[in-house]
Amino acid sequence: MVTASIITIGDELLIGQTIDTNSAEIARMLNQIGVWVQRRVAVGDQREAIWAALTEEETVSDIVLITGGLGPTADDITKPLLCEYFGGQMVVNEAVLANVKYIFEVLYKRPLLERNLKQAEVPNNCRVLLNKRGTAPGMWFERNGKVIVSMPGVPHEMRGMMENDVIPSLPGFFNLKKIGHRTLVTAGAGESLIAERLVDFENQLPATIKLAYLPNYGIVRLRLSAILETDDEEKALDHSFAELKEKLSDIMIADSDTDLAAIVADLLKQGRKTIGLAESCTGGYLAHLLTAMPGSSVYFKGGIVSYANELKENLLGVKATTLLQHGAVSEETVREMAKGALQQLDTDYIIAVSGIMGPDGGTIQKPVGTVWVAVGDRTALITQRFYFRHNRAKNIELTAQNALNLVRIFILNNNKDAMNRIKIS
Amino acid sequence: MVTASIITIGDELLIGQTIDTNSAEIARMLNQIGVWVQRRVAVGDQREAIWAALTEEETVSDIVLITGGLGPTADDITKPLLCEYFGGQMVVNEAVLANVKYIFEVLYKRPLLERNLKQAEVPNNCRVLLNKRGTAPGMWFERNGKVIVSMPGVPHEMRGMMENDVIPSLPGFFNLKKIGHRTLVTAGAGESLIAERLVDFENQLPATIKLAYLPNYGIVRLRLSAILETDDEEKALDHSFAELKEKLSDIMIADSDTDLAAIVADLLKQGRKTIGLAESCTGGYLAHLLTAMPGSSVYFKGGIVSYANELKENLLGVKATTLLQHGAVSEETVREMAKGALQQLDTDYIIAVSGIMGPDGGTIQKPVGTVWVAVGDRTALITQRFYFRHNRAKNIELTAQNALNLVRIFILNNNKDAMNRIKIS
Repeated sequence: MVTASIITIGDELLIGQTIDTNSAEIARMLNQIGVWVQRRVAVGDQREAIWAALTEEETVSDIVLITGGLGPTADDITKPLLCEYFGGQMVVNEAVLANVKYIFEVLYKRPLLERNLKQAEVPNNCRVLLNKRGTAPGMWFERNGKVIVSMPGVPHEMRGMMENDVIPSLPGFFNLKKIGHRTLVTAGAGESLIAERLVDFENQLPATIKLAYLPNYGIVRLRLSAILETDDEEKALDHSFAELKEKLSDIMIADSDTDLAAIVADLLKQGRKTIGLAESCTGGYLAHLLTAMPGSSVYFKGGIVSYANELKENLLGVKATTLLQHGAVSEETVREMAKGALQQLDTDYIIAVSGIMGPDGGTIQKPVGTVWVAVGDRTALITQRFYFRHNRAKNIELTAQNALNLVRIFILNNNKDAMNRIKIS
Repeated sequence: MVTASIITIGDELLIGQTIDTNSAEIARMLNQIGVWVQRRVAVGDQREAIWAALTEEETVSDIVLITGGLGPTADDITKPLLCEYFGGQMVVNEAVLANVKYIFEVLYKRPLLERNLKQAEVPNNCRVLLNKRGTAPGMWFERNGKVIVSMPGVPHEMRGMMENDVIPSLPGFFNLKKIGHRTLVTAGAGESLIAERLVDFENQLPATIKLAYLPNYGIVRLRLSAILETDDEEKALDHSFAELKEKLSDIMIADSDTDLAAIVADLLKQGRKTIGLAESCTGGYLAHLLTAMPGSSVYFKGGIVSYANELKENLLGVKATTLLQHGAVSEETVREMAKGALQQLDTDYIIAVSGIMGPDGGTIQKPVGTVWVAVGDRTALITQRFYFRHNRAKNIELTAQNALNLVRIFILNNNKDAMNRIKIS
């Protein structure tokens, strides 16, 4: 198999100031064209560290993709280092110069600075990759049948360069084998329980097919992967996947790599239905998940984030006595929130959530992590209480995912049995 | 300096299915106690790859922290490998066994499976780190004056182990030097422009102090770092930081490592004021940013996500003629959204946003990325139009950050001059 290493450069990665999203994105793109990323390495803005990483990864992998270290400021040392590493000389590239000028004069409408002009200098022994989204060019080097590419660290600049140039160019250099993945998404069972159910399946799985468990927030993804050179290999993968689906049909929520928000969105679009939200503890996060996808206006009309009790009363019509007697985090309150929101937003379905996300606000009766969710439509509401035991951010995420799963089940069959059968936590 | 390497294990990291947040979190914690993370390496669930990474990182660093590869399912091979690598034997650990049983019987209320019992097996040559948040124990190995620690990959389990055990234990083994950071956050100027203004500053900066530029969504963070062994070193760092603040006072928005949501939250808390939202294109994301912080109910009352025009009319009182004549993405509409929301939510301040996030919905007059923002209070509203040129996710992020910056400026001085002076894009 053709192998790759990803090197990310920048002190900010090593002191934890920045989360590296580039590596995952590059890996996903490479994986799709059949390149196996075997190592990802992050090093700081130090010459020796970068040089050592380059030397090592060039030895072990066929392709080395580098991001970061190309910005206009003085803490960036990668470009001259690459030039020296490959034994070239720095020259001004006219196309890059024109791009830098265009970006400053036409787009930014700002004066062009000396250090930006320096961005037009590139090693004379690389192919320059134009950056349509920024001033730093990419560089494509070849040596001993290997390809080494340097790209800027700004995510959307890197992405553009990968999509427009690197990914289309690689198949011309390597004999790439297609890798196939089949992903099944489950809710309602832990990793161990699923593994226990799949002991026989795993024992009988062909050695060429690999099974991975990817648990995340109460959802477990199961992924089968195989090299697909022949039709038989593809058939074998499909056969194993069909068997897996059959075995886990009771907990499967999707047979492709998707998430709950997308599943709910698809259900709504299929049924030409709309959804609305009454959010307290998730504070707009559910609305964000449902609007992060393109085209969401087809099924999402809006939501009311009623963080203060006053707004639960004034905007959603929750009764003051309900809040007084049962509290904001109660079955009664989420029921009234749901009913009020259905009326205000005039949607087919509704989700209402109220809970205590922490770190403060818990009581003995209602500890941090207590959440009530109501989902339904004009004819029926179902409610469920959850207890999450995590930090604020994770409690918000878990509340949102569980609420989406509950409305998914409601939409599918409006059936209490189904709700009790599939619980995620 | 005491150095560390972080090794993350898991195929999911190499095919891009998972973004590695653990490394950043571990790096941040190590950095705070004066450990310099010099390399981060990710490898797949392959014996040879893990072995090679261990061998190499143990050679170059004093501390090696490993996450991942400890789950209960068959794709995890790390524990027996570590046992062999350090020449030990697997034995059942009674404390871990009791923890596994407790988690299943008391917390999960699920049957304990054979493969979960296996999680109680650990190498006999390590110190076991109890996992209070899950079934997989951590392992602390020592060899030749170096420390190698293996932790589970589940983020909150890893975090608990770091906080409770690893971070408190390391100072007993190494003579750690304190590293100091001073971070200044700016808005309104690009990385190059700032660098141009800081040429003299950088030239005069003591060699022991390092300056880094960290641009992100129109915000540029400038970070000074130094080893702080003596009072003089600390004074020198503070002196340089004071100079930096002085030089960039016109674009500085904070003198500590924070973000716009936290800055706005602090301003609101200081003034005992509340804020409300009328969101269209950000679809709840602004509300999420303002409620992601603990204690947000003090300043955040709620918001209306009026994605559909019908809700802009019904809930916010935007006039049908306004929508017809000027469109949903217009100065007139965000003004009416802001006024309506102020009335409905009864808050001191308001933010209203409407825009086209893409990929669809753009026109020649209003291309994708066109955004109108209104911020203000009962006495005044200011508006601004933005054009963002990115993908949907980044357009949402940029809209939210710019809206927060606009309300920050409004709160600070309700002054049009200030608004024109500081623009971020």
